[in-house]
Amino acid sequence: MQTLRVALGDRSYPIHIGTGLLGQSSLLAPLARGRRLAIVTNAVVGPLYLDAVIAAVEEAGTPAPVRVLIEDGEQAKSWPTLDRVIDAFLAARLGRDTLVLALGGGVVGDLAGFAAAVYQRGIPFIQAPTTLLAQVDSSVGGKTGINHARGKNMVGAFHQPLAVIADVGTLSTLPDRELRAGIAEVIKHGLILDREFLVWLERHVDDLLARDPAALGHAVRRSCELKAQIVAADEREAGQRAILNFGHTFGHAIEAGVGYGEWLHGEAVATGMVMAAELSVLVGTLPREDAERIRALIARVGLPVRGPALSADRYLELMQVDKKVAGRQMRFVLLEGLGKAALHADPDLGLVRRSIAAAAP
Amino acid sequence: MQTLRVALGDRSYPIHIGTGLLGQSSLLAPLARGRRLAIVTNAVVGPLYLDAVIAAVEEAGTPAPVRVLIEDGEQAKSWPTLDRVIDAFLAARLGRDTLVLALGGGVVGDLAGFAAAVYQRGIPFIQAPTTLLAQVDSSVGGKTGINHARGKNMVGAFHQPLAVIADVGTLSTLPDRELRAGIAEVIKHGLILDREFLVWLERHVDDLLARDPAALGHAVRRSCELKAQIVAADEREAGQRAILNFGHTFGHAIEAGVGYGEWLHGEAVATGMVMAAELSVLVGTLPREDAERIRALIARVGLPVRGPALSADRYLELMQVDKKVAGRQMRFVLLEGLGKAALHADPDLGLVRRSIAAAAP
Repeated sequence: MQTLRVALGDRSYPIHIGTGLLGQSSLLAPLARGRRLAIVTNAVVGPLYLDAVIAAVEEAGTPAPVRVLIEDGEQAKSWPTLDRVIDAFLAARLGRDTLVLALGGGVVGDLAGFAAAVYQRGIPFIQAPTTLLAQVDSSVGGKTGINHARGKNMVGAFHQPLAVIADVGTLSTLPDRELRAGIAEVIKHGLILDREFLVWLERHVDDLLARDPAALGHAVRRSCELKAQIVAADEREAGQRAILNFGHTFGHAIEAGVGYGEWLHGEAVATGMVMAAELSVLVGTLPREDAERIRALIARVGLPVRGPALSADRYLELMQVDKKVAGRQMRFVLLEGLGKAALHADPDLGLVRRSIAAAAP
Repeated sequence: MQTLRVALGDRSYPIHIGTGLLGQSSLLAPLARGRRLAIVTNAVVGPLYLDAVIAAVEEAGTPAPVRVLIEDGEQAKSWPTLDRVIDAFLAARLGRDTLVLALGGGVVGDLAGFAAAVYQRGIPFIQAPTTLLAQVDSSVGGKTGINHARGKNMVGAFHQPLAVIADVGTLSTLPDRELRAGIAEVIKHGLILDREFLVWLERHVDDLLARDPAALGHAVRRSCELKAQIVAADEREAGQRAILNFGHTFGHAIEAGVGYGEWLHGEAVATGMVMAAELSVLVGTLPREDAERIRALIARVGLPVRGPALSADRYLELMQVDKKVAGRQMRFVLLEGLGKAALHADPDLGLVRRSIAAAAP
């Protein structure tokens, strides 16, 4: 097991990365001691890991954990599901001494984390991500929330977990499509922050797709290190943290445009990164050959490099409601070379349209 | 105008108290400058003050404020109303540069504050309380939230406002019943923290009921001073702040038991304080004569000193789900004399039942 740390003063927390962590009582029991535990998971992940987790916390000597199952998929990030989770907490008479364990992928983490953020004005929670995407990205940094018909993640809170327990053993049962989607965010971290890591990824794509444990472990650890640095420097996205949204302005438009859940988040981000790289070329901050290299890497992973059948007008409409729009301005994260990103406000809309067209279906 | 300060480090903010403040552009315009403004109010308060507020911010030169009207009454503290407010924000394409102005009583402040807390993971807001209860209590301290069928304020956030603008001129149009309900929380501040203020209240009850501006101004200012001290010392209610819940464990049970909105919050708190004073006598921390003095003061204000027709079992059931229940424990705020309060965990349930019976209908 390796342990990183997100440095956020009195909200600092560890990220544990390793195999078989969910069954280790030495990790979970000390956190659960003296608290009630509420495990939020879904019908796919629950049967695989709930027994191990419950056995691991048994030695804390606390009452049996309350289990809340939510539906699988992005549509669970909704008001009705949030209300059902809150209702289950109240029905079990959970007080402020409760610890929520989010056991699952990004959807479970975002929803359960937000439920913890607002239940009785905030109770602590642990992220136990079981997908690659959640392990390398969404479980770290405290962003929680739900979607709205008018836009993704429009309602939420910054609520840092007490700990992240990334059991890479769970990746062995991950569907192939979700594995690839997770690799999209790994690539993103290389693109915006670490050229050397990007080169490593180009060399080890096949190992990752073959689920080589050492390769997956390295990808998770380096992604978490990079993200933890950014979050520690800018917890609430006042500035620098926004570069983590590389590919996301286009990507969120894709997700909303085709209907949440049709494209996986990582798939939409992959195509969004192709568009954002193209925009970087058109604006003049990235050499054409680097954009081609990015497109080639994404294609090798088996991720989409072409968008869905949406008009450029529809993209722009969806992007304008995206929360990265600060007031009237549209902001994009552009690359300034491989491993370096920066925010650009209000690029020429003609260039944005051309970037979308370059990845047309 | 007088200005107090809630000292919370980088979340510190001023409380402005005076007459005619809502129409003063020198207060509102600097806060609105460079931002979009979204005013959340209701159909009772809106027509009275919206024009003045909009005129006052006009000189900030920002786009016309977005107005969101919610229904009047406690039932507006609900998921559906919250969703409507969020939807209105999104329909107006409000970004993170938006400032929410909560213009109204405690319900508007709690709901609009919570909407600001979760909209795009948190945007700033101003409290402009227009009821006595909101001016002396709910607008100060950052507690925001909504109710759940299983309990009051069960979903919410700590989200401190940028400023509180308490225009005591608005109290001239306040219905009599709401004026009395607000005085309940003023009395509470005296009871738990300031014997001298309590004596002042006993002497000036008639002035307050006659809406004497000087008396109201003093009641608001002293209440805000007392509350600001407590909030500064214990923002998230880890300890001391809980004494502000004096009368509220019983009071919340009354509100939930009769159905939200039947009793005003301040009315339920008034009866709850009679019960909590009785419990203090039974536990042995308060002389019987002090409890009688409290009951007499509450009666003079015209507030209920007798509870609704609810069984003691129903009270206990409702109190057990109340969020002041930390896990399995029931905690009550008891008086240790006039002007001094302390938390007591797990008092004898027989005594709790006798306290309820002592204020039976």
